[in-house]
Amino acid sequence: MSKARKVYESMMENDFCSQWLRINPILIEEGHCILEMEVRKEMLNGFGTLHGGMAYSLADSALAFASNSYGRISPLINGNMSYAKGAKLGDTLRAEAKVISLGNKKADIDVTITCVGHEEPFYFFRGTVYRTSKEHDV
Amino acid sequence: MSKARKVYESMMENDFCSQWLRINPILIEEGHCILEMEVRKEMLNGFGTLHGGMAYSLADSALAFASNSYGRISPLINGNMSYAKGAKLGDTLRAEAKVISLGNKKADIDVTITCVGHEEPFYFFRGTVYRTSKEHDV
Amino acid sequence: MSKARKVYESMMENDFCSQWLRINPILIEEGHCILEMEVRKEMLNGFGTLHGGMAYSLADSALAFASNSYGRISPLINGNMSYAKGAKLGDTLRAEAKVISLGNKKADIDVTITCVGHEEPFYFFRGTVYRTSKEHDV
Amino acid sequence: MSKARKVYESMMENDFCSQWLRINPILIEEGHCILEMEVRKEMLNGFGTLHGGMAYSLADSALAFASNSYGRISPLINGNMSYAKGAKLGDTLRAEAKVISLGNKKADIDVTITCVGHEEPFYFFRGTVYRTSKEHDV
Repeated sequence: MSKARKVYESMMENDFCSQWLRINPILIEEGHCILEMEVRKEMLNGFGTLHGGMAYSLADSALAFASNSYGRISPLINGNMSYAKGAKLGDTLRAEAKVISLGNKKADIDVTITCVGHEEPFYFFRGTVYRTSKEHDV
Repeated sequence: MSKARKVYESMMENDFCSQWLRINPILIEEGHCILEMEVRKEMLNGFGTLHGGMAYSLADSALAFASNSYGRISPLINGNMSYAKGAKLGDTLRAEAKVISLGNKKADIDVTITCVGHEEPFYFFRGTVYRTSKEHDV
Repeated sequence: MSKARKVYESMMENDFCSQWLRINPILIEEGHCILEMEVRKEMLNGFGTLHGGMAYSLADSALAFASNSYGRISPLINGNMSYAKGAKLGDTLRAEAKVISLGNKKADIDVTITCVGHEEPFYFFRGTVYRTSKEHDV
Repeated sequence: MSKARKVYESMMENDFCSQWLRINPILIEEGHCILEMEVRKEMLNGFGTLHGGMAYSLADSALAFASNSYGRISPLINGNMSYAKGAKLGDTLRAEAKVISLGNKKADIDVTITCVGHEEPFYFFRGTVYRTSKEHDV
């Protein structure tokens, strides 16, 4: 098993939130990950579309697995999301995270969320993590 | 009942996500709202702290009630969150949203999240909504 | 001359700031543009590297030409920049802007700034513009 | 002279960009600073209003003096600006920066820019700096 996968398994075991959201791993590799999540009724906002925080949560999980894949514990310090379109009940969202800059103390990660059956992305996320000197125990 | 409260009631009825997160209204008024949420086990990430997307979800709900309080339907177009500290299981978070700029087509909203028992804020959020010409049916 | 080029020429004529910064157009087309700028002494901050606002200014100009290229006047409403590396005196920066989402009322634009002679990007920018109904007079 | 003032003087001496923009210090103290800048012709964009990057530059300078005031060298890693109104030629802008969270490794800074003669703020900025272990030599 790759180190990236080991870190993912170790984190996911305690990541009760990603479990709660029923986030599924499609691809886990160093600096790169793809996750999927289905839009359920309890994720809708008052407008009948996906709550902005749910789209962000999917992106944040993708960021976490991508940025921690190198082995160092790396918490999020800043996240930014742009909302292009609103997902609906039953939609399947796919988040692809890529580490776009890997420094000694921080890393920047880009996450684009598409909706199965639609060509153009729905949500654009960018986040920065602090890279601690502490290693994941894997 | 104030218009802000009517809009809140109407939105919250269909906001299955805010219900799912058990978000409680403390204060709802025009351009201003305070919400509370308790950190539950299913909200924790792989580090044992509150998942970044859960803190963001609380802020987004607060933004929504504050920015829609004037009566016009106003979806989020961009959100940004800075993470100062990580909340833990059992913590009670309090989000205070204030509309800091109200334009004809957009509004900017500031949301600060504090943690009961701690003096310094844990999360800082800022978001921009598009103000449609469509009114809430209240 | 393409419409994108005509809009660029019309904007640049009055864009005294982009002129002041000696920003050069490398490519101007619909929804896409590439600009260059050299780091001069008056652009340095107190650390001896490029002032964060100067990198942002280059990105903002690139965003403006890309997002206005369709003909509708489209001012910036939110911008976000991540700083991966710091450019130095004499460096040539190249900003590539791409419209990543084009809606009726808003558009999202991604701008990546690289430094000639370096492989990895130095600055990552993302911005949102409001698309007015007013057309550029070109 | 306070430490904050000493750091400011030391940084400003080499901050050719803030000098170029004719940024004036109104108040410099620990974790807090107020700067002013006049909108000159060379700061205008193609719409005849202040270039978004110039407003951001003023905010970034204010952030820098506030966040470095404690003595540790603290470069910007992420900045975000919301544009509520556009300043015009001859306007005097006043940026007030406050450190809203001071951690061991990072700090978050809020900067609000007002325009003399106008009640409501024009620009809202938030930035995060990395706090290095290196001290300013003052």
